[in-house]
Amino acid sequence: MRMVDLIAKKRDGKELTTEEINFFIEGYTKGDIPDYQVSAMNMAIYFQDMTDRERADLTMAMVNSGETIDLSAIEGIKVDKHSTGGVGDTTTLVLAPLVAALDIPVAKMSGRGLGHTGGTIDKLESIAGFHVEISKDEFVNLVNQHKIAVIGQTGNLTPADKKLYALRDVTATVNSIPLIASSIMSKKIAAGSDAIVLDVKTGAGAFMKTVEDAKELAHAMVSIGNNVGRKTMAVISDMSQPLGVAIGNSLEVQEAILALRGEGPKDLEELCLALGRQMVYLAKQADSLEDAEAKLREVIKNGKALEKFKEFIANQGGDPSVVDHPDRLPKAQYLIELPAQQDGVVAELVADEIGTAAMLLGAGRATKESEIDLAVGLMLNKKVGDTVKKGDSLVTIHANRENVDDVKQKLYESIRIADHADAPVLIYDIVTE
Amino acid sequence: MRMVDLIAKKRDGKELTTEEINFFIEGYTKGDIPDYQVSAMNMAIYFQDMTDRERADLTMAMVNSGETIDLSAIEGIKVDKHSTGGVGDTTTLVLAPLVAALDIPVAKMSGRGLGHTGGTIDKLESIAGFHVEISKDEFVNLVNQHKIAVIGQTGNLTPADKKLYALRDVTATVNSIPLIASSIMSKKIAAGSDAIVLDVKTGAGAFMKTVEDAKELAHAMVSIGNNVGRKTMAVISDMSQPLGVAIGNSLEVQEAILALRGEGPKDLEELCLALGRQMVYLAKQADSLEDAEAKLREVIKNGKALEKFKEFIANQGGDPSVVDHPDRLPKAQYLIELPAQQDGVVAELVADEIGTAAMLLGAGRATKESEIDLAVGLMLNKKVGDTVKKGDSLVTIHANRENVDDVKQKLYESIRIADHADAPVLIYDIVTE
Repeated sequence: MRMVDLIAKKRDGKELTTEEINFFIEGYTKGDIPDYQVSAMNMAIYFQDMTDRERADLTMAMVNSGETIDLSAIEGIKVDKHSTGGVGDTTTLVLAPLVAALDIPVAKMSGRGLGHTGGTIDKLESIAGFHVEISKDEFVNLVNQHKIAVIGQTGNLTPADKKLYALRDVTATVNSIPLIASSIMSKKIAAGSDAIVLDVKTGAGAFMKTVEDAKELAHAMVSIGNNVGRKTMAVISDMSQPLGVAIGNSLEVQEAILALRGEGPKDLEELCLALGRQMVYLAKQADSLEDAEAKLREVIKNGKALEKFKEFIANQGGDPSVVDHPDRLPKAQYLIELPAQQDGVVAELVADEIGTAAMLLGAGRATKESEIDLAVGLMLNKKVGDTVKKGDSLVTIHANRENVDDVKQKLYESIRIADHADAPVLIYDIVTE
Repeated sequence: MRMVDLIAKKRDGKELTTEEINFFIEGYTKGDIPDYQVSAMNMAIYFQDMTDRERADLTMAMVNSGETIDLSAIEGIKVDKHSTGGVGDTTTLVLAPLVAALDIPVAKMSGRGLGHTGGTIDKLESIAGFHVEISKDEFVNLVNQHKIAVIGQTGNLTPADKKLYALRDVTATVNSIPLIASSIMSKKIAAGSDAIVLDVKTGAGAFMKTVEDAKELAHAMVSIGNNVGRKTMAVISDMSQPLGVAIGNSLEVQEAILALRGEGPKDLEELCLALGRQMVYLAKQADSLEDAEAKLREVIKNGKALEKFKEFIANQGGDPSVVDHPDRLPKAQYLIELPAQQDGVVAELVADEIGTAAMLLGAGRATKESEIDLAVGLMLNKKVGDTVKKGDSLVTIHANRENVDDVKQKLYESIRIADHADAPVLIYDIVTE
């Protein structure tokens, strides 16, 4: 088998066999196939696409390129949730204890990553003492006993995907549905869960700018998951404006606590229920999505979800008293209001630009080496559709520096006040097959 | 400027600017842009094509990537002829003296190359003493005095094209009209001629298998030439069966001598006139193609073309007596006939397979290191459309080994005898713009 022939085959719109896809990915991982052939193949895939079968094979070839996590020692159906990434997305912090409160095992492997705010681990680390440096055995024991634990990313998972992604990034082949879908799914599958719930974001703050593209990606991922024996569902949700009102690490922990009490922002609650009911359903703890949602509402109402969060924090060395005393979380030195410059209705809160404003404060990492300031961030006092009067505070800036003119300017650029606003949509679609 | 953005631009079907194409080719030549970005760009070009302007710019960027030959010291309009390559193609040996006999300067740079038989230089070297190792000054003086000279390939011409071609070969992007056309044209333009005549072959023995593809390539090259100020014309000619009857180095020299006497195979004569009249017309030595053809016929008839060939041979150290005594050319030890195995009409003589048979005898180079046997080759006694009786000789094999069973088998496989044959077409089209 020669790679040049496989490139020609894909270039001509033909379907690669399982054997051919394995040859390609194994050869590339080992270094037998050079970057220049793989970049030509990626561009051919960009134009000619892949069938569902090829996508599933590509995903599994990447899974098999490295280590995989074995979660079989954990009892029950492990359901993982993955978001394609947005601004102020607090869903993981809410969903993990919420679902665990229904005795569904949440064995979460998480990262720090780059972005407007930190990753799930960074956010949790704003709770004093909380740590994710636990052994594999401890992790399994915690999940079996308490149904919830978080561990830092470990092992050499999907090295083929890492290599492919780095190459795609410099060869203009990032934006290809079969390549994006197989990349995300390979990582989730290697992480060992039995079922997967996907939150595919769309809008200015998301990778997929249009609803149509987001739907295509969601269908592609759900199809891969189901084709390789991991039940998968997806929600297409809005990321044109940030989710919830908090953007920043400790601010999002506070927001998650409110949501677990049933007192969080409406959009965050709605999305958590949409994703949570899919998780509960796939974990076979409900007969229908409606039944699943009722169970979730129940554990919010009766306090079990909040209790589970405390238990989770204590298990991993954190101070659970922050749940009842959120003022014990890191606090910024300065709270600065951003006054509206005119009367009207908030018509736009451009998510990625607001995220950039949070990053300017130090809430996220621009490079791997950047230090995160867990206390800083933004609280949105108005969201799309809200009426404002000139002088009303649009945003409260939580800063550790007095002069935030750069942040204010960025925020003013990203907030549009007009005579009227279209009603915001939160959930565009539910993809179950 | 970043290469990744240029790849994305081409991927999205947009037109690259002159500056962008120069950045790409200069960066690649210098090694600043890596192979993996260029292979992605090539695949994007494969799918999205290039406009006439982009093709001309790409060609000139490759010309400017290395040295160019300055023929300005040679008086008159220098017209070069290029063939896309075939089997038993003796046209250069005929055309060079034929056109020079009309006082048109033929300043030919030629190579050895790989293939079924040798390059033009190999063929000429079957004349004892003939050599192409002459200085640049000698070359210019010869052309000014005698209107004809051949020199070996010299200088670092179009290094970008060499690098690009090697990459395309292993990334399934050879077969792209803008990339093929700019590759060929860059080499011809760097070689310094004022006008170019192209012989684009089509059929089994050619790179372009269909007439349609050959026409597309011809139009692409003619357009590039005219857009960069080098008048260019093309002939689309058949290479489904070999041209003429001789395949082999000294055999083709003998065939050229016959053709210059007006006694060569009809198809070879017809193609030489078709190409020659374009050369004469572009050199402005005739007012029309018809006028040009009449002049060519005249110098064949009055012996001037043959005299020019002798003069040319003598000028470069060769023995001109071979023209009147072709038996002084290298001769093979064994002449072996290939008898027809049935009655009928020759329906097919698959050019590339017959070329392979010649290579088995040693007439061509499989690798750069291969030694060529100038004496060996094939003489076709029948061509497509000819009637044969069982036992008639189809081919005379000129070999320097007694056992040629492998060659015979290859030949039988490539010659189809049937009840009837379609009339062969020699010239499919003439492309003048």
